Amino acid sequence: MTKLRVESFTISIDGFGAGPDQSLENPLGIGGKALHGWAFATRTFQAQLFGAQGGETGIDDDFAARGFHNVGAWIMGRNMFGPVRGPWLDESWRGWWGDNPVYHKPVFVLTDHPRAPLVMEGGTTFHFVTKGIRAALELAREAANGKDVRIGGGASTIRQYLRERLIDELHIAIAPVLLGEGERLFDGIHLPDLGYTCTQHVPSQRATHIVLTRT
Amino acid sequence: MTKLRVESFTISIDGFGAGPDQSLENPLGIGGKALHGWAFATRTFQAQLFGAQGGETGIDDDFAARGFHNVGAWIMGRNMFGPVRGPWLDESWRGWWGDNPVYHKPVFVLTDHPRAPLVMEGGTTFHFVTKGIRAALELAREAANGKDVRIGGGASTIRQYLRERLIDELHIAIAPVLLGEGERLFDGIHLPDLGYTCTQHVPSQRATHIVLTRT
Repeated sequence: MTKLRVESFTISIDGFGAGPDQSLENPLGIGGKALHGWAFATRTFQAQLFGAQGGETGIDDDFAARGFHNVGAWIMGRNMFGPVRGPWLDESWRGWWGDNPVYHKPVFVLTDHPRAPLVMEGGTTFHFVTKGIRAALELAREAANGKDVRIGGGASTIRQYLRERLIDELHIAIAPVLLGEGERLFDGIHLPDLGYTCTQHVPSQRATHIVLTRT
Repeated sequence: MTKLRVESFTISIDGFGAGPDQSLENPLGIGGKALHGWAFATRTFQAQLFGAQGGETGIDDDFAARGFHNVGAWIMGRNMFGPVRGPWLDESWRGWWGDNPVYHKPVFVLTDHPRAPLVMEGGTTFHFVTKGIRAALELAREAANGKDVRIGGGASTIRQYLRERLIDELHIAIAPVLLGEGERLFDGIHLPDLGYTCTQHVPSQRATHIVLTRT
């Protein structure tokens, strides 16, 4: 059976997955960028996000790299796709990631507002799913064609799938950052009752990597 | 100026400082003991809590040891002192720590219910303070006689002092444990707004050590 995975999702010491006041200028919310210091430093992120050479190897890079391994499709929330809220006013918003997004796979975007699929360069197609998280998972599994499905985020999307016990494995990084407000990933989520245990704990100098597995 | 410090306070991945259903049998709440695996393993805790030889040295022990350094008095909440709630029915409850408690210093216990000071062996005296957190701090500072005051816990006590910006420094350990419910240390606490930043981040194999400092 293929897995539904969360990878490289970073929370602050005080438990937030993004800073407050997310916007076009601050896609990760105020202070949110500091969360991802560990990831931006890695060879994997440098290559995947910026097409750049260089970056660090080691623990952080190992976790970044496993996040892209055996992934056949992605799911993300509407707010991760862009800052536009409510109905799509036009089709001009094409994601944060330029003409050739980092995914190179089908990406299923959860939204209440229908929109035609958006074919990008490099193998990424954004599909807009209005029938809920289970429908999106079904479509993503089919598109993944025997590989795993990765949930990109954000916190709200992960929480919806967690509550339904649909996620098999989560890699969470805890960054040494305080955000103070925003959306808490685990608020109101009773992980032990949902069947999750901590199966890996690998600290690095930039973050603490945790793997939670549903048993 | 002497400091008000929190030391070796451990929270779970999901942010809880103790498990649910604290009781005489489960002083740290269900699952709460696993939080402190890093501390129990150290030479410092083995010596201080159990009078035992042995235990590990290294990062965890360094943090455990600094918690006892230059401490002249302690403050703790009523629930950390014992499982008895409401008025003291009698004076039979003398703390969790036997005749010779680990503190060896004056300890100021926050409570709504007056009780005469309790003199124990080895230099520990429990003073019961009914006039609130600022009164307790004043008494503790005076008793500390030029040294720092350490807040033992629990989460509720720390949160009260945090909200009033009275704590100078917090050493928090994040343990690779899920608790699911209990009291979240940072719920409703906006640490950046209160002036705290993360000034140290030292991971070990058993926990991630974080120091938060008020600037």
